[in-house]
Amino acid sequence: MKDMIDAERLGLDDVIAAHDRIAPYIHRTPVLTSSYLNGLTGAELFFKCENFQKAGAFKVRGASNAVFGLDEATAARGVATHSSGNHALSLAYAAGRRGIPCHVVMPRTAPEAKKAAVRGYGGTITECEPSTSSREAVFAELHARTGADFVHPYNDPRVIAGQATCSRELVEQVDALDAVIAPIGGGGMVSGCCLTLSNIAPQVQIYAAEPEQADDAYRSFKAGRIIADDAPVTVADGLKVPLKENTWHFVSRHVTDILTASEQEIVDAMKLTWERMKIVMEPSCAVPLATILKNPEVFRGKRVGVIITGGNVDLDRLPWMQA
Amino acid sequence: MKDMIDAERLGLDDVIAAHDRIAPYIHRTPVLTSSYLNGLTGAELFFKCENFQKAGAFKVRGASNAVFGLDEATAARGVATHSSGNHALSLAYAAGRRGIPCHVVMPRTAPEAKKAAVRGYGGTITECEPSTSSREAVFAELHARTGADFVHPYNDPRVIAGQATCSRELVEQVDALDAVIAPIGGGGMVSGCCLTLSNIAPQVQIYAAEPEQADDAYRSFKAGRIIADDAPVTVADGLKVPLKENTWHFVSRHVTDILTASEQEIVDAMKLTWERMKIVMEPSCAVPLATILKNPEVFRGKRVGVIITGGNVDLDRLPWMQA
Repeated sequence: MKDMIDAERLGLDDVIAAHDRIAPYIHRTPVLTSSYLNGLTGAELFFKCENFQKAGAFKVRGASNAVFGLDEATAARGVATHSSGNHALSLAYAAGRRGIPCHVVMPRTAPEAKKAAVRGYGGTITECEPSTSSREAVFAELHARTGADFVHPYNDPRVIAGQATCSRELVEQVDALDAVIAPIGGGGMVSGCCLTLSNIAPQVQIYAAEPEQADDAYRSFKAGRIIADDAPVTVADGLKVPLKENTWHFVSRHVTDILTASEQEIVDAMKLTWERMKIVMEPSCAVPLATILKNPEVFRGKRVGVIITGGNVDLDRLPWMQA
Repeated sequence: MKDMIDAERLGLDDVIAAHDRIAPYIHRTPVLTSSYLNGLTGAELFFKCENFQKAGAFKVRGASNAVFGLDEATAARGVATHSSGNHALSLAYAAGRRGIPCHVVMPRTAPEAKKAAVRGYGGTITECEPSTSSREAVFAELHARTGADFVHPYNDPRVIAGQATCSRELVEQVDALDAVIAPIGGGGMVSGCCLTLSNIAPQVQIYAAEPEQADDAYRSFKAGRIIADDAPVTVADGLKVPLKENTWHFVSRHVTDILTASEQEIVDAMKLTWERMKIVMEPSCAVPLATILKNPEVFRGKRVGVIITGGNVDLDRLPWMQA
């Protein structure tokens, strides 16, 4: 983690530099609306569709910013990370575009579709048990062995600056937003929203949405300090990881509130979005809509940006089809 | 079917008039691309996403053109149709927007999601057996009883002129297309492509794609006359109906070729599109990609518009999950 800058030193200049650096490797994703979902919620919802992003998720923004910011000598040793899925395949994608090695530690329970995609981009996978502790132990060995540059999935200012480009596009695409809501796991996307919006649109409220069964960010937010759980169980498999110091910096300062939803509410919101908006998205992406449906009084009459974070789903294991 | 004009009399003026008439009630749908699918096929594919259309399918174009073209006295008696699904709910949507009654005959085997959507828009359903003969007999009784204006799902020039607005948008959205390919059932969408492209972009080749197990249009095309099957069986449930005289007029004159795909090829192409493009679409929409993958020599190096016709899928019955 040498050369890491602190979250405190991140500014709008870093976001603009990241956006210029990664533009050749990412999509400027579309914003979709649904009159049905607007009617159902009483809000005006603007869905920023990062499920259509390169490598299928917003994570490619931060990963590309890290990979293409490396000097030649460091890049030649490759990059390494641990990830529950999308950061792994985003880093593999970015490393593949630059032509450097990529080593990833993934839980053995990660969706097969994500593992296949990592390999498809040329990444090398080392499996671990599905817990934060196992993941970190396996990674430490890998990191020491390869000497690759560690790109943490979210606790890395280069990654946060990359994720921040998403909300920068959103405020360019949609006028007069009142609020933005994004799912929160480790807090990379939410931190990116905080970094961008606190600088260029400070009037926009920032909400985070989290599964009740993995509500460590919610409890951290209420307690005023980081609380981490080991191996929570939720259908929203991208949201199991805890906050770290660089994301806590932003979440604790700029987030208006963190809202939670039950597993059934998440699956219902996911299926509803597939049915009405005709988009393939991950369970994690349904948590914001689930919390909007659960807390209509918070959002009614407001113009709300909703970050659809990714679309890498195992189509053979859809959550509403499992007994 | 009084006041029906013949297909021979349809011209570009009718397409432009239809577009002006229906613009307040439809989306100008986006065109998506996939570098993965371009690499796989060797072609440049431009997917016109009518799955994001109002009521979930291109059929709302033709249905809206018919409904909003009615004089007040005729409109007051309502509209009626028979349809395997999307035309039914599109007509119900359009009638609902105009505030007039809508009666539809649907096969009892039609997807529950489509039946629920028809009722949600205020339409009334009468069920029939899943065969062309049963459908027509049940409809005749309903039509005589209600006196509603019959809007045929495709053999109606008002409907063809409405569907023709889709390819008009596509050629505005994508430069220098070499070809357009669309699924063919009754031929409404393909006829609309023929009507528009023969007038404004006659250099664009028009291909139709059909399931091998419901290949009546293919056999008609080769034989030079309409051949109709009763109750073919295919996963592409929107493509079971036969050509009629108004669509045969266009298909026989302007289509370059009709290509077919097997059930497995259709399901594979459907799942591939969901996985890589992150869009929810019907099995029918996968037939064009299945035929492109099967006949790469026809499309390699070409810029090809692919009509994604609709997204109204029963998410509890996905074809790759059925044993």
